[in-house]
Formats: sequence, structure tokens, C-alpha cells
Amino acid sequence: MFESAEIGHKISKTAYREAVPALRAALLEAQAGLQESGKIPVVVLISGQDGAGKGETINVLYEWMDPRFISTLAFAEPTDEERERPPVWRYWRSLPAKGRVGIFAGSWYSDPIRQRILSEISMKELDARADQINRFEAMLVNEGALVLKFWFHLTKEGQKKRLKALESDPRTAWRVTKWNWDRLKTYDQLQDVAGHLLRMTNTPWAPWVVVEGTDDRYRSLTVGQIVLEALKEKLASTDKQESPVAPMVRVDTDGRNVLSELDLKLKLTDKPYERELAQWQGRLSELVRDARFKGRSLVCAFEGADAAGKGGAIRRMGAALDARQYQVFPVAAPTEEERAQPYLWRFWRHVPRLGHVAIFDRTWYGRVLVERVEGYCSENDWLRAYTEINDFEHELADAGVIVVKFWLQITQEEQLRRFKEREEIEFKRFKITQEDWRNREKWGAYQQAVCDMVERTSTGNAPWTLVEANDKNYARVKILRTLCERMEAELDGRQAPGAEGRAKKWGKSAKRGKSDAKYAAI
Amino acid sequence: MFESAEIGHKISKTAYREAVPALRAALLEAQAGLQESGKIPVVVLISGQDGAGKGETINVLYEWMDPRFISTLAFAEPTDEERERPPVWRYWRSLPAKGRVGIFAGSWYSDPIRQRILSEISMKELDARADQINRFEAMLVNEGALVLKFWFHLTKEGQKKRLKALESDPRTAWRVTKWNWDRLKTYDQLQDVAGHLLRMTNTPWAPWVVVEGTDDRYRSLTVGQIVLEALKEKLASTDKQESPVAPMVRVDTDGRNVLSELDLKLKLTDKPYERELAQWQGRLSELVRDARFKGRSLVCAFEGADAAGKGGAIRRMGAALDARQYQVFPVAAPTEEERAQPYLWRFWRHVPRLGHVAIFDRTWYGRVLVERVEGYCSENDWLRAYTEINDFEHELADAGVIVVKFWLQITQEEQLRRFKEREEIEFKRFKITQEDWRNREKWGAYQQAVCDMVERTSTGNAPWTLVEANDKNYARVKILRTLCERMEAELDGRQAPGAEGRAKKWGKSAKRGKSDAKYAAI
Repeated sequence: MFESAEIGHKISKTAYREAVPALRAALLEAQAGLQESGKIPVVVLISGQDGAGKGETINVLYEWMDPRFISTLAFAEPTDEERERPPVWRYWRSLPAKGRVGIFAGSWYSDPIRQRILSEISMKELDARADQINRFEAMLVNEGALVLKFWFHLTKEGQKKRLKALESDPRTAWRVTKWNWDRLKTYDQLQDVAGHLLRMTNTPWAPWVVVEGTDDRYRSLTVGQIVLEALKEKLASTDKQESPVAPMVRVDTDGRNVLSELDLKLKLTDKPYERELAQWQGRLSELVRDARFKGRSLVCAFEGADAAGKGGAIRRMGAALDARQYQVFPVAAPTEEERAQPYLWRFWRHVPRLGHVAIFDRTWYGRVLVERVEGYCSENDWLRAYTEINDFEHELADAGVIVVKFWLQITQEEQLRRFKEREEIEFKRFKITQEDWRNREKWGAYQQAVCDMVERTSTGNAPWTLVEANDKNYARVKILRTLCERMEAELDGRQAPGAEGRAKKWGKSAKRGKSDAKYAAI
Repeated sequence: MFESAEIGHKISKTAYREAVPALRAALLEAQAGLQESGKIPVVVLISGQDGAGKGETINVLYEWMDPRFISTLAFAEPTDEERERPPVWRYWRSLPAKGRVGIFAGSWYSDPIRQRILSEISMKELDARADQINRFEAMLVNEGALVLKFWFHLTKEGQKKRLKALESDPRTAWRVTKWNWDRLKTYDQLQDVAGHLLRMTNTPWAPWVVVEGTDDRYRSLTVGQIVLEALKEKLASTDKQESPVAPMVRVDTDGRNVLSELDLKLKLTDKPYERELAQWQGRLSELVRDARFKGRSLVCAFEGADAAGKGGAIRRMGAALDARQYQVFPVAAPTEEERAQPYLWRFWRHVPRLGHVAIFDRTWYGRVLVERVEGYCSENDWLRAYTEINDFEHELADAGVIVVKFWLQITQEEQLRRFKEREEIEFKRFKITQEDWRNREKWGAYQQAVCDMVERTSTGNAPWTLVEANDKNYARVKILRTLCERMEAELDGRQAPGAEGRAKKWGKSAKRGKSDAKYAAI
């Protein structure tokens, strides 16, 4: 992996001075093209050995390009807002918007490397992280991003020399601390761990570029040229670059499926309804105040056809909660800022802090439901969404978030009845639009999409609960009961995240009060 | 202030049951109107004595309204991301978007009240806060918000009774802690401080509503009806409600002004330029690494006509900084999410953390420059913006943010020369649009707007530096030198925030590790 970065590359002062003006002009040109197209976010990871010129290279990129459209994200000690959410949350919130360049000084690679060096995770866990990283980066690329990963390499001897040189120059001496010298002692370990992780994550869609860090001019020019070529290629390629997907294949030999098996005649009369509702609401309000919930959080997803009763169910759930503890997110068309980001970004931004509850009225499943059926996204988009959604929920669950998902099923007849009822009750102000009526024509397609969704995304960590919702009483009680039972199981540890999961939370070294240096970019 | 809330208001169960259905229907109707109009953010403050029913009332509002369009913001212990910014930052980031309701459980009143009770601030400082709050709320109202401020009152005897009642009911006992009982001891103090602050902030545009908290039904019904009436009034009033503004009056008896007095012939030849540039860049890079800067932050504002050299100056400044420490924000048209907020929101969101630098390429002064001249906002909007901007910068400066502002002045001839030059140099890809040419026709109007801006917003904490920018060398060196000198003065404490300022930072009680209870809503 590092061999070609140990051969002593060097660029002379003259050659450098000759090359830079044209390179700079071309980079500005490419960057302008990037803004004009407005479709590509550029993610640049700058990583490698201490003293190998990470900071210098970033500054050179700023010198050569237009700094107004670049952001550099340094990931020092996580803030408490970050610590109370899954570890990848801080990276999601920092992703560059389309048309912009985001330079990551430190990235999703830093934690796994550090944790492995400190023996906080096993090799097997490291490999699992590599898999997850690969899928995350594949998602970025599929969503249109250009992902450039640089690793600056130095030999052990070279690193010693660089640190000494930095130390002896009064302008750079401040950058070398005892901590850097300590790190030199773990040079071999870092080489081993990073080498392994780099090989595991050297994917066709986001390959590593290993650059020898010894010579400043060589390193700068190499990085500049690679950024330029990659930008030009990406801007020129008109065909969408996407992971291959298998078409949806389905077995339907007897016309039965998970939805048709539901008994939509299930009912609950008012008396037992009121009793049970009060009982489960009481239980829920105890559970969210449970001391054990302070270290967890809850994400509730509600999906269902129009008029299936999502709103009513959410109100009954909310009635058991303290308004200061939860928020309902109605999912409508994405905003401009959301459209400039990968699909799941607008859900990641609402992941709750510890001890809090987020209720989604329609969810990230929109992509495999309405967007699929109405053709709002490409087939490739929704076909790969199943995996991306599973990864998303897996990250949540691993970090201790309790993920509960409800599909509210009603019959077409019941929907019609409710539509008509809504039109009559003036104060509800529900407008039954042409679109609502049109959606009804696609009933079959939606039902099929739901079956596929349940099959592909009902996971151990985040199972679907199908709710017989023709009777509102029955549905509401089933939802509250399911929620309580699920929370009890989670808080009792009966559904706690596995060993792999726990390891993925903030490592021991993420405790408050430790020096920032621990979080310096690798 | 509290007299009418001590007369023992009560609503019978029957009267309550009769009133609620119609009230709820009307509230839902009004809320739907709110969303349809999409113009009004609703800010509801719920404050008052412990045990006076703050939490209950919020929950009742959720029950009666559509919770999908309400957010409740509880301000417990500030997170470190909040602590590293001016105290009001956490409220700005929580403001509801247009069409939504934001309920504040705890608000900008909580800190002043708490700090005064703990004697951390003097009465005079409390009054200064009241003034600031009044201006902040006036800004909200001027920007179209409906601001409803509720204070739930209990007599001392009444509070004791309520706490006992809550404690004896197993469903609510958990809510009463030793801390609540302790607070009862400071009842008189709270009454005094809150009474004073409420009177000071009982403005025509955002008056207080004091509600007796003893009887749940009375309190709920009162709040519900007030919210309803206020919503209906606001939705019905088609004329914009705005603070009066005086027209811009100007003395121009001799044709001289701050811009005409600038000597635009000032020049610096290349040799001394390079030497001085290197010198000040070196100094700047030391200053931002200075240990004393770790507790401060820097906001740099660049304004100037097109082609005045803002971009070039920013690049020279950036060259002295570590990319991980600063970010450049080019200010263009606001995004959809920004348009749903008060004007200054999109600048508040980029206020840097401690030890960090934010550089704005065009700024919040857009309102009194381009928006004023081009008529993108009403006269009232830009006339009141001067005060709002001063308040914004005052909040920053008070919290230790160093605010440095540059206006780059060039002649019309120089601008023309640069436009033509740009068109020729292909790689710069600057497009001189029709708009650019049109802007030149309004040169005089822009110059006048700049003079007014400097006159009204050059404050002790955040003075304007006018830069003679016909010669780029001269301008860049002046900018860097000014910046360094200003930072030196600030770090040496020669321009440190005054006593009033220091008090406005996070109070002593805002230290980490203290119980959340300290931050319970007042």
C-alpha cells in the first residue's frame, strides 16, 4: 500500500514554479464549473502520518482554489451535542452541499484507527467498520458525490526528520508537541492498523491515493493535480455513476402477502379502548422518565396510506409524553438545503439527543414508497435505498437509539369512507385533492411497495409492526402497546445492541476533558 | 402586575367540558390558516412559578392543536456548542420558521432572572438586559412574528399547596424535587425580580399575559383562548405591523462625506508590499494561535462595490490562518430555510465557536446596501435594520467576539478598468453581467447608502474601517494591519468588553456539571 510513497519523490523549485500558475488557473476553472453544475458535492479526506503535511496541503488547496466555496471540517473532541448521537452524526452534519468542496481533516477513519491502536476494538470489529465505511462512501458516490481520499505517508525515519525540521523552524515549532513525539513511538502500530483499514476500504468508487509526504512541492503538486483531474472527469462524465442493482424480483404464486394476511376486522369498542389507552399511555410516560432511558433515545416512524390514522395515533402517543422531550417531524417535500444533500441527510439532522424522542409522520421510507410508485426518483435510487436505510437504522440502533416503525394498514373502502367524512367535517380543514384521488388508483402499486419494504427493511434492530388500522381504537392501542413492550425490552437489555454495536459507540477515549490532541486528525 | 392573578379564578368541570370542543376546533382552524399563510412564526413563552402549570399548559396546547407544526424548546444546561457562543445564540437557533409555533419553556428571560436572584448581575445590568430583550422582541414582531408571553402566577401559599398536591399524586410526584422546595424559599425574591423585569418588558408589541396558575381548567382555557384570539387577529390584519421609523435625514451642505475624504491615490509598490504583507500575515498567524484567543473568536465583515477586491483581501487573510480554524461565508440570496426566519438568522447561524474565525464576503449589511438601493425590502425594513445590526454586533462583542468590518472603496473608473480586465482574463471566469453594469448606474445611491451605514453602525465595539482600495497592495496591507492591531488591542484587554458586557456572558451558574435543575424554565 505504501511502497510507492517511499521512493523519495521530489520536485524542484523551478519545476514547481512553472507548474503552479497553470494548475491554479485550471483548478479555479474546474471549481467554477462545479458551482455552475450545482450537482456534485466534493468530499476530500486529508489523512496520514503526523508531520506528513496534512495542514500544509489544505492551506495550499485554499491558496489555489476559491476559499469561499470550500469548508474544512476538523473533528476535534466531539461536542456534547455530537456525543449524544451516533458517532457518524457529526460527519453527516458536516457534509458539503452540492457545488461545494468539503475538506475533512480527520474523518470517519480516525475513530476506528485510534480505537484499534488503543485496543478498544478487535480486528474483527475493525473489519466491520470498514464494511460500514464502504457502504457509506458508496452511498455518497451514488448520490452524486466525488469522494477523494488522500493518505500522506512518511517512513519512520522520514517522520522523525519532518518533526525535527518543523520544530527547528520558529514559524512551525508550535505545531510539534510532546504528543507528536509520542505518536512516533506508535508508528509501526499506526502503519499496521491504517494499512489494513486502507486496504479494506480501497474501493473502486472511492479509492485511496497514497502520497509521499516528505517533499512539500511534490505533495502539493500531486494533490492539486489529482483534485483537478478528478473534478474534470466528474464534470465531463454525463452518465450517472451508480452501483449496480438487481431488479426487484417477486414471488406471488398464491396472491397472499403480509398485508393480505392482516385481519382488518379487528376492533376494540370504546370502553376497553379507553381503559387500555389510559393504561398504555401511563406506562409509556413512566418508560420515558425511566432513569435508563436517559442514556437512550427513541425514533418512531409512522407510515400508512392517506387517512390511515397516523396523525391520530401520534397525538395519542404525544399525550403520554412531555412536550419538552419530543418533537414531531411531518415529512413533506425537502427544502432547498435538503435537496443539496444526500437523501438521508434530512432525517439524520433530526436524530434526537439522549433522553429525547423524535416522531416522524412519514419517513425516510418515502423513497421506496411514494418516490418509487410515482417515479420521483430513478429505479436505481429506490432499489439501493433499502440497504442505505438499513445502514441508517443500524447506526441508530448501534448507538442505543430505539427504532420503532409502524405501518398502518386500511382497506380501500375504509379510506374512501374517511375521505368523505373529512370533507364533511369542516373544522378538520382537510382538503381532499385531486392527488389524493389519483393516489387511490395506484393502490395496488403502493401495496406491492409496502410488501417489498417490509421484506427488505424489517430487521432485528428495527422491525416493522404492521397495524390493522380499519378500527382506530384497535390501531391506537396496538401501537402504544407495541411501543411500550419494545421499550421495556430495550431498557431491560433484552434487545440491547450486541458486542459489535456497543463497540461502535464513542470509544473510551471520547470521555470529556481529555486533550483535544487525542482527536487530532489521523 | 400580579394582582389580578390572585383573585382565585376557577372554571367548573361542566363549563370546561362545554367550552373545549369549540375552542379546539377553532384553534385547529387558526393553525391551518397559519400554515396556509406561511408568513407568521408564532413565538409562545411559557414562564412563571414552579408548580404553576407550565408543563401542563404546554401539553394541553399539544392536545388542542396539531403537534406536527409545534416545537417545544426547553433550555436546560447549555451545550458546549451553545456555551461557546453569545448567550442569545441558542434562542436564535431555536426560532420557529414561518407558519410554525415555537413554544419556549424557558427563554431569554430565564438567565437574567436567575442571575439577578444569585446577585450575579446588578439591578442596572438587569435593566440593560430588559432593554435588549425589548429590542429583540421588537425585531421579531417587525419581522412578522406573533410573540405571546405568558407568566403563570401563584401566591406563596398557593405554590406550597400546588407542590404538595403534585407530590401526593403518584402520577406527578416525580416532578417535585428538593430543588422545587428550595425555590419556594426564594419566592419573594423571584417575585421581586420577575415583577420588575416583566414590567420593564411589558411592551405594546409583546405584552405579558399574567395568568393565575392555581386552577388547571381556568389556566388552560385562558391560555387557549388568548392563543386563539391572537392568532385570529394576526391572520386577519392585512396591514403590516411595524415600529415607526424616522425617514433618513441627511446634511450635505458641502458635498463632502467620509468616502469623498478618502485618498484613493494611496499606493504601495511591490517590494514594500511583499515585505509588509509577510510581516502582517506572520503577526496574524501568531495572534490566532495566541492562548488568549482560545477564549475569544473573530468575525470579519467585508463589504465593497463589485471588483473592489474583497476576494483577494480575504485570500491574503486566509493565507495566514489554519484552514481548520476559519470559514469563509459568501453571502448570496438566502435559502428557503433562511427566508422562513428573521433577516439576521442566516448570519447568527454562522457565528463561530471559541477560537474560530468567520469571514463574511458580503454581510448582514446587505439590507442597508443592496436591498435598500434596489428596493428588495421596504423602507421600514432597512431603516430599522441599523439598530438591529448594532444589537447583533453588540451581542457578539459582549460575548468576547472580535468584530472587524471593512469597507473597500474604489473609484468608478477603477471599477470599470477591473471589469474589463476580468472579461479579458479567461481563467478568472468572472462574468460581467447586465446587472453589474446596471449597478454602476446607481453608484451615487450606493455611495450614499455606505455613508449612512458607516454613520449609523460604526460603534465602539465594532467600528468600520474604510479602506482606500484603488491600489490592491495598499488595501491588503491596510486590512491585515488593521486586523492585527485590533486583535492585539482586544487580546491585551485594551478594548475588552465593559462590565456590562462581561456580565452578559454565561453566568457563574452556567458552569459544566451543575444540575440541570438550575436551568429549569422560570
